[in-house]
Amino acid sequence: MTRAQLFAQIKAKSSYLCIGLDTDITKIPKHLLAEADPVFEFNKQIIDATHSFCVAYKPNIAFYEALGPRGWESLQKTIEYIPEGLFTIADAKRGDIGNTSSLYAKAFFEQLNFDSVTVAPYMGEDSVKPFLYKDKWVILLAHTSNPGSSDFQLIESVVTGRKLYEEVIVKSQQWATADQLMYVVGATQAEKFEGIRALAPEHFFLVPGIGAQGGDLRMVSEAGMNNQCGLLVNAARSILYASPGNDFAKHAAEEARKLRDEMDKYLVQRL
Amino acid sequence: MTRAQLFAQIKAKSSYLCIGLDTDITKIPKHLLAEADPVFEFNKQIIDATHSFCVAYKPNIAFYEALGPRGWESLQKTIEYIPEGLFTIADAKRGDIGNTSSLYAKAFFEQLNFDSVTVAPYMGEDSVKPFLYKDKWVILLAHTSNPGSSDFQLIESVVTGRKLYEEVIVKSQQWATADQLMYVVGATQAEKFEGIRALAPEHFFLVPGIGAQGGDLRMVSEAGMNNQCGLLVNAARSILYASPGNDFAKHAAEEARKLRDEMDKYLVQRL
Repeated sequence: MTRAQLFAQIKAKSSYLCIGLDTDITKIPKHLLAEADPVFEFNKQIIDATHSFCVAYKPNIAFYEALGPRGWESLQKTIEYIPEGLFTIADAKRGDIGNTSSLYAKAFFEQLNFDSVTVAPYMGEDSVKPFLYKDKWVILLAHTSNPGSSDFQLIESVVTGRKLYEEVIVKSQQWATADQLMYVVGATQAEKFEGIRALAPEHFFLVPGIGAQGGDLRMVSEAGMNNQCGLLVNAARSILYASPGNDFAKHAAEEARKLRDEMDKYLVQRL
Repeated sequence: MTRAQLFAQIKAKSSYLCIGLDTDITKIPKHLLAEADPVFEFNKQIIDATHSFCVAYKPNIAFYEALGPRGWESLQKTIEYIPEGLFTIADAKRGDIGNTSSLYAKAFFEQLNFDSVTVAPYMGEDSVKPFLYKDKWVILLAHTSNPGSSDFQLIESVVTGRKLYEEVIVKSQQWATADQLMYVVGATQAEKFEGIRALAPEHFFLVPGIGAQGGDLRMVSEAGMNNQCGLLVNAARSILYASPGNDFAKHAAEEARKLRDEMDKYLVQRL
C-alpha cells in the first residue's frame, strides 16, 4: 500500500485507528473454545464488526507464536480474512543481520502478505534494508512507551547531543523515505511529540498505548498530526475485550466507533 | 541448564563450539528434498554427526519462520532431537514490552523447551525480565559484528562516557546475574574483547562470526576466555554446507572436529 492510498483510506473513513489483534486465548469468550480455531474465529468476528471504523490491523506476532504451528495457521487465516484496502502490520519487532532479516521479510511480506513489519533498530542499517520492498513498509522502533524505554532510548550522544531515539529517527531517514518508513512513537510521551514530528515531518507514526494502556488520543493527535494525518493510533485490549460475553463483537464495534468519532473531530480540525 | 553444567560439558568435550542451525532449504543437498521434512532430516544428520564436537546448537528462528507452520514443526522436531545435555539457543532476537515478551518466553522456554533466547535490548529492562526463568538464559545483544552495528551501538553517552553497547552490559547486570544472562559479542570486534571482558568478567559471551563469516577464533579465545571458559563460539555455514553432496554430514563433522581441536588447545592454555 502506498502513502497516498493510506491517506485516502483515512479520509474516506474519518479514522486513523489501528486495531491490535493481540488475541489471547485465555481472554476470549469461552463459547469460542468449542470452535476448530478459536483464535481465528474471534479475530474474524472482531474484523467483521470493526473494519469500517479502522484503517489498519496489527496482529502481535507473539500471541500467535506462543501457540506453536497452530498459532501460525490462525495468523495466516486472519491476515487472509482482513478485507482488501486495510493496512496490515506484523508487530514482530524483528532486527537481525542482513540475510536473516531477508528471511523475516520473506515470511511477513511474501508468505503472509503483510503491508508492514515493526523492526528494532539496535543492529543498524543492514537490519532495516532487507525490509524495503516496493509498496511495503518498515515501522522502526523509535521512542516506545514501556517503563524500560528510558533505559537506553534516552542516552544522549556526546557527538550530536541527540538522544538515542532521535539518532534512530535522523539516521534511518538516510535509508528510506517517508513512503517506506514509519516510526513507533509511544503515546505516553505525547509531550515529546512535537519534537519528534519536527525531526520527521512527513512520516507516519504508529502510536501504541491508547485505550487500555492509558494514553491520550487528544494530545497525540494535536501534537503529532501532519497534513496527511501521519498517525496510526493503535488500541487493542480496550476493543478486543470490551465485553467477555457472546456479545463481544458488538461491544468491540462500539469501542472502535467511539475512537473513530473522536478521531473524526481531530481530522476535521487539522485537514 | 546451570552455568556449572555448561562448564562441565565444555571441559568434558574440550569444546565451546556452538553450531548454528541456519538451515536453508535452498542450500541443503538436493536428495533431501524427497524427504517428508527435508529441513528436519538435514538437521538430524548434522546433529548425529556433530554432537560430540559441540556443546550447543543455535537454530536461527528466521529460517524456520520463513517456511510458515511447516517450518515451525521442523523446529519443534529439531529441538526435541538434540541430545540431552547440549545447550540450546533460540536465536530469535526478540525484544518487546513485558506481556508480549512473556509470550515469547512461553513459546521458546515452555513450548519448545530451549535453554536460552537471544534478546534485543532497545526496549530496556521490561523486555528482558520476562525471560528470566529458573535455569534458563537470556542472551542479550551487546556488540554485534554486522556492518550496521556501528550505527547506534557506538553512540557514546554524554553522562557516563560509555558507548551504547557498554551501557547495555553495565545496566543489564542490575537485572540478572551471570547465571542467567549472557551477551552476544561479535567476533570481528576481537580487539574490543578485553574491554568487554573487563565489564563482565564472569558472563558467558555468545560469539557469532567465526568460520564462513571470517572471524578469528584465536583472537576471540585469547582475549575473551575466563576461568569458566565464558565463551560459546558459533559457526554455521562453514559446517552445515561444508559439502553440497550426499556426504554433507561427514564433512560437517570434519569441520566441527577441526574447530573443536583448535578450541582444545586454547582451553588447555587457559584452564
